[in-house]
Amino acid sequence: MKKSIGPKILHLPAPVWLVGTYDADNRPNVMAASWTGICCSQPPCVTVSLRKARYTHGNLMARRAFTISIPSEAQVKIADYVGMASGRNVDKYAQAGLTAVRSEHVDAPYAQEFPVVMECRLLHTFELGSHTQFIGEIVDVKVDEDALDERGVPVIAKLKPFAYLDGYRGLGDYLGDAFSIGKEIGEA
Amino acid sequence: MKKSIGPKILHLPAPVWLVGTYDADNRPNVMAASWTGICCSQPPCVTVSLRKARYTHGNLMARRAFTISIPSEAQVKIADYVGMASGRNVDKYAQAGLTAVRSEHVDAPYAQEFPVVMECRLLHTFELGSHTQFIGEIVDVKVDEDALDERGVPVIAKLKPFAYLDGYRGLGDYLGDAFSIGKEIGEA
Repeated sequence: MKKSIGPKILHLPAPVWLVGTYDADNRPNVMAASWTGICCSQPPCVTVSLRKARYTHGNLMARRAFTISIPSEAQVKIADYVGMASGRNVDKYAQAGLTAVRSEHVDAPYAQEFPVVMECRLLHTFELGSHTQFIGEIVDVKVDEDALDERGVPVIAKLKPFAYLDGYRGLGDYLGDAFSIGKEIGEA
Repeated sequence: MKKSIGPKILHLPAPVWLVGTYDADNRPNVMAASWTGICCSQPPCVTVSLRKARYTHGNLMARRAFTISIPSEAQVKIADYVGMASGRNVDKYAQAGLTAVRSEHVDAPYAQEFPVVMECRLLHTFELGSHTQFIGEIVDVKVDEDALDERGVPVIAKLKPFAYLDGYRGLGDYLGDAFSIGKEIGEA
């Protein structure tokens, strides 16, 4: 039997993405966001939803560029911190011991310490209610060299990304290959 | 050192959501989608991006309603199957042994067997390129009663959701509380 629990949001799981922007004084900022995801393959696009009150919201509207960094398990406290503190009041890069790097292709910074970064240019903004949805085109992805295999594919066991559910959780057992294990049920 | 790997899409991780719709003949259909996520808190909204060629795309445009079910680890083969087969050619509910239930609030079906379902009404569609982005308002969430704790909160260890990365992976170790463990780095 199913029980109704009302129109709640369940993140089962949601990503933990770190959004990098410059503010009006060219100071690098970074915040964690989980109302995020992939939303198009061609052009390759991500969606990031932010409340208007967030400092990053104004930065993104002004610069029309951002980065998305993917933190590793060992960086979970930093990810949590940059989701709570505001760049209005504090230099989060300094406080968390992060090294700001200017993106190669877009007007936004990223932290050298996170193993993966996507450089994004803002394509669309949609007002949805409490949140503005930002759609960004991925113009480049950079990955720590030692987390790539010999074919240049990122290795999950080295990146150790994590997710946001009832708290933060690492990724666990490998359950099977996508577009493959379902063939036991029926023809594709 | 970081290495550029170009404008690739990395799902690190992406959710595995099952989208339920009725077709023009009122047959229930279900497909897996991972270009998905949460995109607004008030109203509570989800985003699902689909290629125009998908059968669900037409169903969703016509009915303006859908469900999102969250499968459990033991259902990973079913999730993979419904992401490969098309409702144009086969009754996926029958093939996978699923029981179709009509939603209480929207014109869309869901499968009784998946532990969580969100009933959604379509609010917006945005053409992004290869994919159409569907924004749906969550009007109700239903959860298997035995997966709720005494406060009515879903228990992750009972739901056992999984994610899509290099393949499907379960969720692993608990790394810490959100909006909490970052306080070791600095003030919120």
